[in-house]
Amino acid sequence: MPIPDSPNVDTASLVQSRSIRRFSAGGSTDVEDALAVEEPLEIRVAGDPIAMTMRTPGHDDELAAGFLFAEGILTSLKDIGRIGHCGQPGSEGFGNTIDVTPAPGTAFDVDRVLTTRRGTLTTSACGVCGRQSIDDLLERCQSLARGPEVEARKIPEMMDQLRSKQHAFEQTGGLHGVAIFDAGGQMLSAREDVGRHNAVDKVVGNLLLSNRLGSGNVVAAVLAVSGRASFEIVQKAAAAGIPIIVAVSAASTLAADLARRLNITLVGFVRGSGFNVYADDGRLLPEQTL
Amino acid sequence: MPIPDSPNVDTASLVQSRSIRRFSAGGSTDVEDALAVEEPLEIRVAGDPIAMTMRTPGHDDELAAGFLFAEGILTSLKDIGRIGHCGQPGSEGFGNTIDVTPAPGTAFDVDRVLTTRRGTLTTSACGVCGRQSIDDLLERCQSLARGPEVEARKIPEMMDQLRSKQHAFEQTGGLHGVAIFDAGGQMLSAREDVGRHNAVDKVVGNLLLSNRLGSGNVVAAVLAVSGRASFEIVQKAAAAGIPIIVAVSAASTLAADLARRLNITLVGFVRGSGFNVYADDGRLLPEQTL
Repeated sequence: MPIPDSPNVDTASLVQSRSIRRFSAGGSTDVEDALAVEEPLEIRVAGDPIAMTMRTPGHDDELAAGFLFAEGILTSLKDIGRIGHCGQPGSEGFGNTIDVTPAPGTAFDVDRVLTTRRGTLTTSACGVCGRQSIDDLLERCQSLARGPEVEARKIPEMMDQLRSKQHAFEQTGGLHGVAIFDAGGQMLSAREDVGRHNAVDKVVGNLLLSNRLGSGNVVAAVLAVSGRASFEIVQKAAAAGIPIIVAVSAASTLAADLARRLNITLVGFVRGSGFNVYADDGRLLPEQTL
Repeated sequence: MPIPDSPNVDTASLVQSRSIRRFSAGGSTDVEDALAVEEPLEIRVAGDPIAMTMRTPGHDDELAAGFLFAEGILTSLKDIGRIGHCGQPGSEGFGNTIDVTPAPGTAFDVDRVLTTRRGTLTTSACGVCGRQSIDDLLERCQSLARGPEVEARKIPEMMDQLRSKQHAFEQTGGLHGVAIFDAGGQMLSAREDVGRHNAVDKVVGNLLLSNRLGSGNVVAAVLAVSGRASFEIVQKAAAAGIPIIVAVSAASTLAADLARRLNITLVGFVRGSGFNVYADDGRLLPEQTL
C-alpha cells in the first residue's frame, strides 16, 4: 500500500506570464500579466486511456485518484498500486498523461464506467480535450482571416447589453450568459444556461438554425461570455468562425495561446471601460482622438 | 431545408422555486428562493446517443445543433433534416432526449468524433451525466447518515479560510478553489484548478492518497467550493461520503434535489455572515444564545 508521491506545488506551476495589452479610458499599454495555466491531462488505468480533462498542472496523482474514486472505480487507497506520469521526464508533453496501476490482486472495473458513460462526450466544460484534440482542432479550423474591425469602446457596451439579457441570472445567480454581436455592436442572439459551453452552443445553434451563420448578410463578429475564457470557448468560436471573443473574466494560458495561433482576438477582464487583450489580429480600433 | 422550431423560452422555464432556509446574523428564516434549473439532455444522431450534458432546459434544438456544429459533425443548416425531442409529450423524462436526423442524402460522420474522443469521459464539468447516471449514482451512493454537526457561524469562517488559500486565483482571477474541513472548521486540504471539478477531485484525492478519507481519526465533514453547486459537486461529495457542501455561489435545482435525496447538507450564497441552506439533515447548529 505505497503512498504515491504528492509533491508540493507552489503557485509558480499554476500561473504563467503572458504579454497582454491593457485598454483603459486613458489608452492602452503593453504589460505582463499572470494567467492560470490550462493543459490537457489524460488519465489511464493500467495503460488504457479512460478520461481526458483540461486541468491546471500539479497534484495530478490526486486528480487521477480522486476522479477514479468519484467514479467508483477505486474504493480505497489499498486498491492503488502505483500512480505516475507516463514517458520520460523532459520529453515533449511529459506530465500530461498519468497512469494508475491497481495493487496486485486488485482489478479496476473500468468497463462498468465506460459502459455507463458510453457516448457521453459531454459538452458543458469538456468538449474537445487533450493534445490529440488540440491537434484535431488546429487541423480542422483554419486561422481566421483579418477583420472585421471593432471599436474598442464598444466592448464594454456589449458586455452591458449581455448583462441586460441575463434575466434568469438576475433571479438566481446561477446561470451563464452568452451573446453574439455583429461588428457594429448589434446583438444577434443571447442565451443562458447552467453550463457555459451549453450557452455557447445555444447561441451558435440559434444563428445556424435561423440561417444567420456565414450566410453573408449578417456577420457574427463577437462571442461574449459571462465567465472565463478557457480552451473550449476558443474551440467553439473557431469552429463557428467567430473572430472575436470577449469574456467578462480571465483567460487561461491555453485559451490565449490558441487564440494567437488561430488569429482570434481574445479579450477578457472587462471592468468598467477597461479590459485586457490576450490576443489580437488588428481588429480592435483604439479610441478615436478628435 | 426546414428550419426547426426554436420556440421562445421565457425565464419561467429556466428558473424554479424551492423552499430554503436563509441564515443571517439575526437568525434564520424559511423562504422561497429562485434556482437555476439543471437537467440532463441526451443528444442523439439518427437515434444513436452521442453526447450527454447537464443543461438548463430550453432551446434544446439550438444546443444540439450548436454542439454538433462545434464538433464538425454538421457544417451547415442544409445538413439537418429534423431536430426533435424523443418520445411522447407528457411522458416522464420527455424533453430530456433530442434527436438530430441528417437531411436526405446527408450522412453525419459521428464515428470520427467518437474515435477522436474514445475514452474521453472528461471530468471538468461533466463527470456523470444523464438520467441513467443519476440513477446509477443513487444506486451506488447511499444516503448519508446523520451528523456530524457544525456550528452555523463556522460556515463563513471556512469560506474566509478557503479564500486565503487561493493564491493562484489571487494572481490571475482564473482558478477555482476547493477545500475540505473537519466539523470543527479545521482545514484538511485545499487545491486550485481551472476546472472546478478537477479541484474537487484533487482535494478528495489528496485525502485518499494520504489515508485520511474514512480512516476514522480524521473526518472530512465539509466540502467548500469557490463557485456554484451543480449536480456533479453533489455527486462527488456523495461518492466521497462528505456530508456537507458549502458553495460560495448558487445551487441548481438538481443539486438541491439530489442533496435532499442523499441527506447531504447543501449551503450556498455565502455573503458576509449570511448564507442559504438548500438542504439540511439537522447538521447545522444555529447560533447559541447566551
